Amino acid sequence: MSKPSIPKGTRDFAPQVMARRQWIFDTIRSSFARRGFQAIETPALENLSTLTGKYGEEGDQLIFKVLNNGDFLAKADGQVLDERDSKRLAFQISKKALRYDLTVPFARFVAMHRNELQLPFKRYQIQTVWRGDRPGRGRYQEFTQCDADIIGSEGLLNELELVELFHEALGDLGLPGVRIHMNDRRILAGFAASCGVSERLTDLTVAIDKFDKVGIEGVLRELETQSFSSEVQAAAGQLFAIKGAGTDAMVELEKTFDHPLISAGLADMRQLWNWAAQRGISSPELVFSPGLARGLDYYTGAIFEVRIEDSPVGSVCGGGRYADLTGIFGWKGVSGVGISFGADRIYDVLEHFDAFPDAAACATDVLVMHMGDATLDASLDAAARLRSSGRVVEMYPDSAKLKKQFKYADDRGIAWAVVIGEDEWASKKLTLRNMRTSEQLTLELEEAIKRLC
Amino acid sequence: MSKPSIPKGTRDFAPQVMARRQWIFDTIRSSFARRGFQAIETPALENLSTLTGKYGEEGDQLIFKVLNNGDFLAKADGQVLDERDSKRLAFQISKKALRYDLTVPFARFVAMHRNELQLPFKRYQIQTVWRGDRPGRGRYQEFTQCDADIIGSEGLLNELELVELFHEALGDLGLPGVRIHMNDRRILAGFAASCGVSERLTDLTVAIDKFDKVGIEGVLRELETQSFSSEVQAAAGQLFAIKGAGTDAMVELEKTFDHPLISAGLADMRQLWNWAAQRGISSPELVFSPGLARGLDYYTGAIFEVRIEDSPVGSVCGGGRYADLTGIFGWKGVSGVGISFGADRIYDVLEHFDAFPDAAACATDVLVMHMGDATLDASLDAAARLRSSGRVVEMYPDSAKLKKQFKYADDRGIAWAVVIGEDEWASKKLTLRNMRTSEQLTLELEEAIKRLC
Repeated sequence: MSKPSIPKGTRDFAPQVMARRQWIFDTIRSSFARRGFQAIETPALENLSTLTGKYGEEGDQLIFKVLNNGDFLAKADGQVLDERDSKRLAFQISKKALRYDLTVPFARFVAMHRNELQLPFKRYQIQTVWRGDRPGRGRYQEFTQCDADIIGSEGLLNELELVELFHEALGDLGLPGVRIHMNDRRILAGFAASCGVSERLTDLTVAIDKFDKVGIEGVLRELETQSFSSEVQAAAGQLFAIKGAGTDAMVELEKTFDHPLISAGLADMRQLWNWAAQRGISSPELVFSPGLARGLDYYTGAIFEVRIEDSPVGSVCGGGRYADLTGIFGWKGVSGVGISFGADRIYDVLEHFDAFPDAAACATDVLVMHMGDATLDASLDAAARLRSSGRVVEMYPDSAKLKKQFKYADDRGIAWAVVIGEDEWASKKLTLRNMRTSEQLTLELEEAIKRLC
Repeated sequence: MSKPSIPKGTRDFAPQVMARRQWIFDTIRSSFARRGFQAIETPALENLSTLTGKYGEEGDQLIFKVLNNGDFLAKADGQVLDERDSKRLAFQISKKALRYDLTVPFARFVAMHRNELQLPFKRYQIQTVWRGDRPGRGRYQEFTQCDADIIGSEGLLNELELVELFHEALGDLGLPGVRIHMNDRRILAGFAASCGVSERLTDLTVAIDKFDKVGIEGVLRELETQSFSSEVQAAAGQLFAIKGAGTDAMVELEKTFDHPLISAGLADMRQLWNWAAQRGISSPELVFSPGLARGLDYYTGAIFEVRIEDSPVGSVCGGGRYADLTGIFGWKGVSGVGISFGADRIYDVLEHFDAFPDAAACATDVLVMHMGDATLDASLDAAARLRSSGRVVEMYPDSAKLKKQFKYADDRGIAWAVVIGEDEWASKKLTLRNMRTSEQLTLELEEAIKRLC
């Protein structure tokens, strides 16, 4: 029997951490729910064929494949086995795989259930995803995503709703220095077109997307490496040199670059900016970032990324509009827009700023002490009554020494102890002890309940 | 591109089902939390070595193994490959596996974190588990368990707390006909000893455990098949012939069989029965079932199983005391007691009795209609104000025909619609429409909010 351990990149969540995580999920969930987003869940196990080819070649390598049960080699190709070809064999011995994100399963869900859904369909989904990334600081093989999407509606009010969701949920979570960056993919497409490199939009986007990590010099180097001309590099320099963060930047962008796609993107950005401002969301919280790219291929309209000022992590949320997410599963032309909250990163930011509220703890309020058989019944009754008054109450389960029971209360951070001794119970009284101050009061039960309110 | 599907034995949860599931989990979670049980979570991916050998040979076959990423064949044994030995190869090409239950991961968690835990440690855990069982009606490869355990305490008050948990949680869930069956493993051990077959306790338990499915004839046949003597079969007949369901049955059991282990088990059963009765839990809800066995090997004291009268499913909850759960991971002699709620079966029972409450729905209360640009701002303000009054509110995101918007409200089961037309808004009024009765009122916003309270 070896010393127990867990796989690298996975985590146990002990009670204190778990209570904080639960509070984060509950807060995000409430924000989703009060706007009428409906929860769905999809299985952790998807058909491998559903996931393959959706995340690029690198992504395909990171999908966790599940070995077929039983004699899985029986159906494997002998030649592939003899050639020790892991890559090909994987698809012969595993039919199922673990969910890699929530977007592809959602698209699969929508395509499969299209006849049961009312459009526009607003859904949220808070579930675990798995990726075979090399584990590292803040990088896990198993983590939780919180996604909200609206599909079947092209109105820009959906984008506004998602900006409001960022604002409300991150506000409720008490995150300081929230910066909601927004851009429109058409602005990038127009930029590429005005540079004459429309056919290389993806390469251009990938290079531009690195700005956050490597700065303008890094982007220019990347463009150079990717053999983009010096004109394109100069244009990229101009793009990132645009000053301002709101309508001022939009004006400058329009002056610097001229293309119908840019105008179309800017019209939406202006409208969104004005609506948001009327709802109390504006600079510095809202930022128009014409260089914001977002790596994913499927975005076609507005894109979002939320960062936290002076925090050690990258973006905590992202999202955008996609013209055709479900097309890969046979239902074409359904436009949608969605966002994702990175709960693990939000946790790290709150911890960094020491900003978790008291509500995010798992505190038991009262420990009722075990004082022996004579008052056991009275103690159990008191515990039940205290619990029905809304407190979290534990009854110590063993007839142990008082010192041991008090130590348990201290170690657990329990604020109050109730002691029902035989003598005091003769006059229907109990002792209420404040575990922090050691102050003790002799009271009737109902008085004690009032004290605790 | 093939038609999308999901693996057999897995499920998508659409919004209505999801809301009901969420309500079940929240209800169980509340019951756990108000007694000071603390939530933990363990990773879905455990080391395969952690899980192997804990669930019997059959169980080992049903564990889903996860294929190592990268060139997994590079480290495989050539001979094993050449022999096409799936069983041995599995352990060479997969290091990780999916959680099969919550008990073994909990034991592993406790052993790993023993220095951080205060004993007694009360934890709950609500997470998905995976089993490669043949999928069938009510049998899934991916389902959710809700476990509560108390470890590091031998007091029988823990057993009482778990009986109270069954009573409270299943009561809060509105399950009719709850029957909490209880027994003590020492009674079965004493029964085996008094028949002279102590060394075959497990075989005997397995046979007796089938009573629920196959009746007394089936048990006797099984005992016959397992070469138990006719004396043992006769004794089993006597065991299941014991009448009554409470202290009466305990008296009869004691008269029929005589063994110190039986007396020890009965002493606890009596105490538990009396305590529970004082807390308002007694016959017919509480049932002493001296033939109750529970299949799992690790139980050593009290055992529980909850069934629902006249329902189509088997047991909905189970549990019991184990003397040494963490010993397999290197921490010996830590006694504990735990229970598990089968959320999927509870769902099926509630559906069977059509007993889901209205609270278990995901209803949007109000749809604010999109009446065009002139009153868009007023409509967004109204939606925000209604939302802050505590209602779930959606704003229709597109400037669509009224008919289409009303149809959406109807299809979604939304109770109220708010219409802000240009004319009425001139005098700061809006129309509040009851979608069920089609009744319409022209009101100021604050009046409408009062109406909806």
